[in-house]
Amino acid sequence: MRAVVARAAAAVDAARLGRRHLELASIGAIGETGLNREALTDADFRARDLVLSWAAARGYRVLMDGIGNTFIRRPGRNEALAPVVTGSHIDSQPAGGAYDGAFGVLAACEVLEALDDAGIVTERSVEAVIWTNEEGSRFQPTTMGSAVFAGRLPLDQALRASDTAGITVATELDRLFKRMPAVGRREFGFPFAACVEAHIEQGPILERSGIPIGAVMAIQGLRWFTVRVTGETGHAGTTPRVARRDALMAAVAMVQRLTELMADPADVVRFTVGRFEVLPNSPNTIPSDVLFTVDFRHPDAGVLARLGDQVASTCQANALGCTVSVEETLDAPPTVLDADVTERIRRVTAEIGLAQMDIVSGATHDAKYVALTCPTGMIFIPCRDGVSHTVLEYAEPEQMVAGARVLAGVVASLAME
Amino acid sequence: MRAVVARAAAAVDAARLGRRHLELASIGAIGETGLNREALTDADFRARDLVLSWAAARGYRVLMDGIGNTFIRRPGRNEALAPVVTGSHIDSQPAGGAYDGAFGVLAACEVLEALDDAGIVTERSVEAVIWTNEEGSRFQPTTMGSAVFAGRLPLDQALRASDTAGITVATELDRLFKRMPAVGRREFGFPFAACVEAHIEQGPILERSGIPIGAVMAIQGLRWFTVRVTGETGHAGTTPRVARRDALMAAVAMVQRLTELMADPADVVRFTVGRFEVLPNSPNTIPSDVLFTVDFRHPDAGVLARLGDQVASTCQANALGCTVSVEETLDAPPTVLDADVTERIRRVTAEIGLAQMDIVSGATHDAKYVALTCPTGMIFIPCRDGVSHTVLEYAEPEQMVAGARVLAGVVASLAME
Repeated sequence: MRAVVARAAAAVDAARLGRRHLELASIGAIGETGLNREALTDADFRARDLVLSWAAARGYRVLMDGIGNTFIRRPGRNEALAPVVTGSHIDSQPAGGAYDGAFGVLAACEVLEALDDAGIVTERSVEAVIWTNEEGSRFQPTTMGSAVFAGRLPLDQALRASDTAGITVATELDRLFKRMPAVGRREFGFPFAACVEAHIEQGPILERSGIPIGAVMAIQGLRWFTVRVTGETGHAGTTPRVARRDALMAAVAMVQRLTELMADPADVVRFTVGRFEVLPNSPNTIPSDVLFTVDFRHPDAGVLARLGDQVASTCQANALGCTVSVEETLDAPPTVLDADVTERIRRVTAEIGLAQMDIVSGATHDAKYVALTCPTGMIFIPCRDGVSHTVLEYAEPEQMVAGARVLAGVVASLAME
Repeated sequence: MRAVVARAAAAVDAARLGRRHLELASIGAIGETGLNREALTDADFRARDLVLSWAAARGYRVLMDGIGNTFIRRPGRNEALAPVVTGSHIDSQPAGGAYDGAFGVLAACEVLEALDDAGIVTERSVEAVIWTNEEGSRFQPTTMGSAVFAGRLPLDQALRASDTAGITVATELDRLFKRMPAVGRREFGFPFAACVEAHIEQGPILERSGIPIGAVMAIQGLRWFTVRVTGETGHAGTTPRVARRDALMAAVAMVQRLTELMADPADVVRFTVGRFEVLPNSPNTIPSDVLFTVDFRHPDAGVLARLGDQVASTCQANALGCTVSVEETLDAPPTVLDADVTERIRRVTAEIGLAQMDIVSGATHDAKYVALTCPTGMIFIPCRDGVSHTVLEYAEPEQMVAGARVLAGVVASLAME
């Protein structure tokens, strides 16, 4: 087995991976480095065309499910066995980068061809997958394709989702299916033996640690709150402090107390007030209304419960005479990834001589839904300055190659069992 | 003299004042109680027509200066003496009330007619004035007419000011002058013996104290700051605290420390953060930029200097790794009103049997500029809930009558000397 892992990893072709990355990044490019390739746009379709042209050159079969998730199948010795699947997404944010999602798809394609090039015949088939609409920027919700596949989002709800121009997912999928009449159909929930997703970290931890590979133990849980503070407007020059009900002063006190509540010497808690809006927002008028959001994440469901349940009371306790409403708008539990797959990632990384560290995913991924259907793992590589969802997103070619080598080794080992 | 004061005050006609208030409030009315009568609009012109129709019925002469400030002259025994002037403005905020400014103009008209009705012949002429564009909402700056009159704002700068549609003050004044060809012209800086402006308080102090008349000792000074905090955006889920430069967290810390700096047990300091804007303002993105404003007012120039000079350093000391720029956008010193006029207001109020208290004006007024040219005082009356610059602005008819009686007595006494 160690020999197969080493051969698969070694067969990853750095030049091919680099060339294909540039080719894929040119579809929907903005400026020198950015990408605008929202889900189910022409750019998305052309990107799929490109990936499928690579599959066609190798003679791989392509299957698509009812939400457009696309599977490229390299047959194993026993086609009756559930396949090992790897992949990610090729849609982007409207002003995103060329690595988020794309790296995982490129690495998946590389794995299939590396197995070919190394002359490895796997027991199980190996599939590369492109999940539809991970970003959720054009059509909500995010991770749409994997959620529908895993049975966690009704297909008709996804099909009805429409963009700001009123175009629905159903309309765009119709265009996609007509464009690819020769593609086979696959049912939702088709059984996988295992799934591994490679992705850029989208955070600074690997880069700061100088470590090329993260074995992702969990995708952290997330609770969102919207806090609305209502006070009373008034003239900034004429209203004494005692007569004020200043929504901004109350909101500032709330954010300060929440910051203290969320303080974590271990730096695992993620606490962000990202949106903060003031009315009437005039320099010489006491604010009557503030709306702010709380984004709170943690890998431990117990901590999510303990701290998250104090958000509303902390706000209420700092109302300073204003009225406060706290609405919880999202409560997504943590996803613990498969321990065996994660251990295999650690082992393969060590075998091919790379340093690795355990890491928690701060962002959500298609793997979150896939993990509900089969043993699932994730491999992270560093990205520059931890930056993602911007045109500045960047990963070194060698970092992508290292991630693809680990992925090839892990998939090869899973597919031999 | 006490007899003249009492006769003038008694001659104020509550029914006439109430009727005219409703009539004037109907021009530019919005809803049941609001007013949209921005400066130099048709509504402003029609409001001037109405006031001048009252003057015409009494045979008073009307004069206008080059910025449209309008003077209604009731001649005294000695026309060579500088007149005693009283008045305010009739323009409003776009969604303002029917008392701010209008009360002072109505009370001034009432003074002239009360003197007539009481058969009082004053030594000095008495004039009612309508200052142009006090509000500064359509054309900046605020208190434009009185500033030009007092030589503190160049006329051409005022004439060039344009509204959002690109229409200039010069264009609108041209319409005003053509509409009123018979009106005499008056030069800027024409000497006054004294000036008294009556106004609603626009704050809650008189109402909370249950006192009908405020003798305004000073118009407080004002310093405005714009604080720009620049951090770094990032993914809310993936960026550890140690790697963040969160502009919102820094801005919140700054506002908290400024609040502590400005804490004043005597409740004389006015400290307001009215504008607070966040970029990119997305729930799951660390804010990269915050802009907030500081509005700081105090009647004492020493306190304005001492605390105001600490705003920038307090922000710098709480930057939390962000960069901070603090720009002072306005520095208006306090205006101490004329001690003799203020003492006369106290005396007249006592003589006609009303309670009064000394008060500081939190808002700015035309009296601020007039005070640079002649002994100037202000009389405040309460307004409900201290509310102004909204359609909810309200003063009781009896409160307006009380203010007009005091004004009549004060003006009469000044005009006899």
